[in-house]
Amino acid sequence: MGKKILLVGGVAGGASAAARLRRLDETAQIIMFERDEHISFANCGLPYYIGQNIKDRSKLLVQTPQSMNERFNIDVRVHSEVIRINSERKTVTVNSKEKGIYEESYDYLVLSPGAKAIRPPIPGIGSDKVFTLRNIPDTDTIKNFVDKQEVNQAVIIGGGFIGVEMAENLKDRGLDVTLVEAAPHILAPFDTDMAVIVEKELVDHGVRLILNDGVASFNDKGDTVDVILNSGQSFTADAVILAIGVIPDTGFLKDSGIELGAKGHILVNDKLETSCQGVYAVGDAIEVVDFVTKQKVAIPLAGPANKQGRIAADNIAGLTSTYKGTQGTSILKIFNLTAACTGSNERTLKRLKIPYKAIYVHPVSHASYYPGALPLSLKLIFNNEGNILGAQGVGSDGVDKRIDVIATVIRLNGKVSDLTELELCYAPPFSSAKDPVNMAGYVAENVLAGRVDTFTYEELNNFDKENNLLLDVRTEFEFQNGHLAGAVNIPVDQLRKELDKLDKRKPILAYCQVGLRGYIASRILTQHGFTVKNMTGGYKSASALRF
Amino acid sequence: MGKKILLVGGVAGGASAAARLRRLDETAQIIMFERDEHISFANCGLPYYIGQNIKDRSKLLVQTPQSMNERFNIDVRVHSEVIRINSERKTVTVNSKEKGIYEESYDYLVLSPGAKAIRPPIPGIGSDKVFTLRNIPDTDTIKNFVDKQEVNQAVIIGGGFIGVEMAENLKDRGLDVTLVEAAPHILAPFDTDMAVIVEKELVDHGVRLILNDGVASFNDKGDTVDVILNSGQSFTADAVILAIGVIPDTGFLKDSGIELGAKGHILVNDKLETSCQGVYAVGDAIEVVDFVTKQKVAIPLAGPANKQGRIAADNIAGLTSTYKGTQGTSILKIFNLTAACTGSNERTLKRLKIPYKAIYVHPVSHASYYPGALPLSLKLIFNNEGNILGAQGVGSDGVDKRIDVIATVIRLNGKVSDLTELELCYAPPFSSAKDPVNMAGYVAENVLAGRVDTFTYEELNNFDKENNLLLDVRTEFEFQNGHLAGAVNIPVDQLRKELDKLDKRKPILAYCQVGLRGYIASRILTQHGFTVKNMTGGYKSASALRF
Ligand SMILES: Cc1cc2nc3c(=O)[nH]c(=O)nc-3n(C[C@H](O)[C@H](O)[C@H](O)COP(=O)(O)OP(=O)(O)OC[C@H]3O[C@@H](n4cnc5c(N)ncnc54)[C@H](O)[C@@H]3O)c2cc1C
Ligand SMILES: Cc1cc2nc3c(=O)[nH]c(=O)nc-3n(C[C@H](O)[C@H](O)[C@H](O)COP(=O)(O)OP(=O)(O)OC[C@H]3O[C@@H](n4cnc5c(N)ncnc54)[C@H](O)[C@@H]3O)c2cc1C
Ligand SMILES: CC(C)(COP(=O)(O)OP(=O)(O)OC[C@H]1O[C@@H](n2cnc3c(N)ncnc32)[C@H](O)[C@@H]1OP(=O)(O)O)[C@@H](O)C(=O)NCCC(=O)NCCS
Ligand SMILES: CC(C)(COP(=O)(O)OP(=O)(O)OC[C@H]1O[C@@H](n2cnc3c(N)ncnc32)[C@H](O)[C@@H]1OP(=O)(O)O)[C@@H](O)C(=O)NCCC(=O)NCCS
Repeated sequence: MGKKILLVGGVAGGASAAARLRRLDETAQIIMFERDEHISFANCGLPYYIGQNIKDRSKLLVQTPQSMNERFNIDVRVHSEVIRINSERKTVTVNSKEKGIYEESYDYLVLSPGAKAIRPPIPGIGSDKVFTLRNIPDTDTIKNFVDKQEVNQAVIIGGGFIGVEMAENLKDRGLDVTLVEAAPHILAPFDTDMAVIVEKELVDHGVRLILNDGVASFNDKGDTVDVILNSGQSFTADAVILAIGVIPDTGFLKDSGIELGAKGHILVNDKLETSCQGVYAVGDAIEVVDFVTKQKVAIPLAGPANKQGRIAADNIAGLTSTYKGTQGTSILKIFNLTAACTGSNERTLKRLKIPYKAIYVHPVSHASYYPGALPLSLKLIFNNEGNILGAQGVGSDGVDKRIDVIATVIRLNGKVSDLTELELCYAPPFSSAKDPVNMAGYVAENVLAGRVDTFTYEELNNFDKENNLLLDVRTEFEFQNGHLAGAVNIPVDQLRKELDKLDKRKPILAYCQVGLRGYIASRILTQHGFTVKNMTGGYKSASALRF
Repeated sequence: MGKKILLVGGVAGGASAAARLRRLDETAQIIMFERDEHISFANCGLPYYIGQNIKDRSKLLVQTPQSMNERFNIDVRVHSEVIRINSERKTVTVNSKEKGIYEESYDYLVLSPGAKAIRPPIPGIGSDKVFTLRNIPDTDTIKNFVDKQEVNQAVIIGGGFIGVEMAENLKDRGLDVTLVEAAPHILAPFDTDMAVIVEKELVDHGVRLILNDGVASFNDKGDTVDVILNSGQSFTADAVILAIGVIPDTGFLKDSGIELGAKGHILVNDKLETSCQGVYAVGDAIEVVDFVTKQKVAIPLAGPANKQGRIAADNIAGLTSTYKGTQGTSILKIFNLTAACTGSNERTLKRLKIPYKAIYVHPVSHASYYPGALPLSLKLIFNNEGNILGAQGVGSDGVDKRIDVIATVIRLNGKVSDLTELELCYAPPFSSAKDPVNMAGYVAENVLAGRVDTFTYEELNNFDKENNLLLDVRTEFEFQNGHLAGAVNIPVDQLRKELDKLDKRKPILAYCQVGLRGYIASRILTQHGFTVKNMTGGYKSASALRF
């Protein structure tokens, strides 16, 4: 008889572990406990099913208990909640709908209980019109509600990935959608300068966006519920989606002897083993190492959960496999835009007092002369040693590709100089001879080498207006169409001829549309003895921020 | 007075070098010599302009002599052919349309003369209906011909990137197109198994495809030209596009003292300096190091040419910058398909006697439950140490992204195990929780670890049919719809129950649709004491090859 392995939770981490375990070991006895009715479902597809972008509900069920049993010989027990772990005697206590409470012993145990939506004790939160979204039953409830009732007004609390996806999908269903976010901007993994582009897309598509405001209380009115914000503002809603984050679903581990973090996350080593021998944990419920900052963090994402499930299985089966940390690479569709990021953002680095530099490029998705080229904005964050700390991208096309490439460079500990050397696919329908990633590398390299000194639009206020010259090097036409207050205009192509118009004693703050001409102007001016800084990202980055 | 720098050729490599030189050095005197009328044009866009996918001719001209002068203070001299380099006295001899023949001295010289289309001495090749495509004048000639004349029949000689792009673009113009390729398959950078998918796409779009046949002669008939092939087959054409490759345009370097390779390529060191002091060379005209095999090769691509131009400029300006080799990352749109590759293919590795293994995966471009998921085929080539030697991908969506990521891993000397750990962007519209690249990594890792033994469809013939069992583990329905001759069918989900039907002494050759179920079957069978190999890529790879 082989090893006896129990799994708690049968979705991303649990099902991945089970399948891999079976492939590695035909003789093991593998039992999967799942509290709910479904295993192996597509959590990430739930908002799109509600939005009717995914039409067929059965498509959400990647594996069923039956198929998992047939293919992988897994003993799948649904409606079976593991309510206690008795690590001393290596058993779990199960509360089964069918069989009642019983104990099951294990040689190895894999915990993948995931996380649950936060429901803080806000007055009135008990209203049956305040929903959260985590699993198939939640989805059915919300979808039935939207399908059947006269639902016109939706308020979404929380501008994270799920909140924004729900905003789009409910808008797709024709609802009037208000999105409320307590922070100064939505999408916490992004910095303000990038998140604003997404905010604009939401607003352009008719989503009412409320920032810097949280929910004070809900007031159920029978058919509707009033959402009263801290500011006093209030909205009447037919349905409220609460999407303000998740907490690990680890209540059942109290008194198990398994060490938990401050917020209830399971602590694991790099083999994903908990403090109890033979007990592994994966997925949203665990604390991981941030691949970039090396801090302990919780990053609830499907890719890591799947990979961790496979790694835990490897270790149980006797292969040595380690998890090296999570970068937080993530992506989101927002109507016609894509937003993606990897690694750390400025906010995190500031908080951790990790020094960094940031640059922006605003290239097009492929050769500008080939039809369909669309602008994208790419932000690269790196340190003085040239290590890449993070990247963020927003645009209509090709954002996923560029963030994937940078995520790969981060994972392989590559540097800014490596970005410049990458040899990526180029033909006009796909990219430019210098891919946006190469371009970001060039720009960063120039900053690192001191070939150009940069400032951001946000830093502009730090400069003394009197003693600096704000120089717009775009064409007269562009300048007339809008420029920064106080700027004087000398187009870059005339700069060499008009140098004598400029005062060498006055430092110059140059800018153009995206940063390129400002850089060229900086190079000209620097070499003629001027002190000059170029505004990274140019007027385009500034305009986004002023949205 | 600064350095005096001359450039020969004003397009990809030359213009990039010029722009970078100026940014690094305001004081240098920079003169660009270009034989033709245009500089800095989009070579790669030319087929699409002929096909009227790019409508506006002026979009092909990225920079003009005037704009290059205004922005970068470059003395651009068009219609000026450099006919000799006098490296002893550091001058070049120029034949100018305007000024006649003169000499110009240099401190530094950058050669970026590119390559020209091969026109072998085939009888009748002088016909004015036999075109090659390299620059704007060629483009104008072909486009005017197609626009004005009664052109219905086109024959394209050569199934390389330009030949295939021209096939698509002339088809888009409504022509009847025949593509003739002398090799057994088109697109030499790909292996047969991947190229066939492209061939099918061409045929499905009405291109007549002739393989294994070359041109014996052309026979001009006045309004048409007959193309007579080696096989005796002949086609009547209104226009012939000859696209059988390029040779370096380095005739003018004879007797210059600059060392050339056997085929006329300029030899350079890793700073891109030629054998003559102060003379640098870049682009299609040089021989480079193959990043993977470390062999000397010529890889005429725009990305490398642009990057090399910048590196040569850096070195001239006193920065130390090296070129570490070319991977040959390249990409092509073929009607609704994309084909991309990086690194070495099987053919090259066999020729160089470099041992390798290859696997295939056929995932979908993004989560299968989200609308628009399209299949793609990915081939990964690696060695026993887990180093990645090459990759090829074909599909309708997301191929560029996957090859870019693998190209990045190759560039950073990453391994198969790194592919499994990459944390890439995942949300349903963009990928799967395990990205196709992760999946290719898993499959390769299993092969390397000996967890599965694989064979390819091509190798099937090597096995003795009598003493091996060909086992189809797909469903009965799939089996009935078509299977390999001689196969017996036991669906993977029934395998454990039907093990006793199988003879342990007979090695099993398992296959499924794409390789996944065959792998699971292999794992089951191996652990029950059978000898088994799985057909990598499955029936799908086999079917492609049998096209
Ligand atoms: C709406 C939504 C959209 C998302 N979109 C994305 C996306 O686009 N990209 C992305 O990367 N990630 C996304 N995620 C996150 C992703 O789904 C999770 O990171 C991943 O599912 C975590 O896997 P897990 O195995 O840890 O937990 P889960 O997949 O949540 O599985 C945990 C399972 O354990 C069960 N369980 C819990 N406790 C017990 C117990 N005591 N006994 C028995 N069973 C128990 C639960 O019922 C649950 O079924 C999304 C999540 C949601 C909810
Ligand atoms: C139709 C077509 C499509 C292509 N598509 C792609 C693609 O999709 N992706 C890709 O990566 N690559 C593509 N390429 C290849 C790419 O264009 C080349 O690799 C790149 O342009 C090489 O740059 P270069 O500077 O070496 O040569 P070129 O760009 O060809 O420039 C050389 C210039 O030098 C001039 N010259 C030559 N000799 C002299 C002399 N003695 N004196 C003065 N001037 C001289 C020539 O007139 C020419 O203008 C394509 C090429 C063509 C022709
Ligand atoms: C589906 C699920 C059960 C995982 O099953 P899985 O078998 O591990 O994963 P996949 O079906 O992706 O297959 C991966 C395996 O097939 C192998 N494979 C894939 N394609 C192959 C091919 N063409 N040839 C050979 N092997 C192949 C891989 O090597 C891997 O096996 P390994 O882990 O032993 O190396 C689990 O991921 C799941 O429940 N998913 C849904 C829930 C979820 O993830 N939700 C969050 C995202 S929406
Ligand atoms: C256009 C051409 C003249 C090159 O000019 P270039 O100025 O070197 O290249 P780009 O316009 O791409 O700009 C790149 C420079 O701008 C900088 N840059 C780009 N975006 C920037 C931004 N937002 N902020 C600051 N700097 C930026 C880069 O750092 C780089 O400068 P560096 O080399 O000094 O580091 C040359 O590539 C060319 O002739 N191309 C057409 C021909 C061709 O390539 N054909 C084959 C392909 S179709």
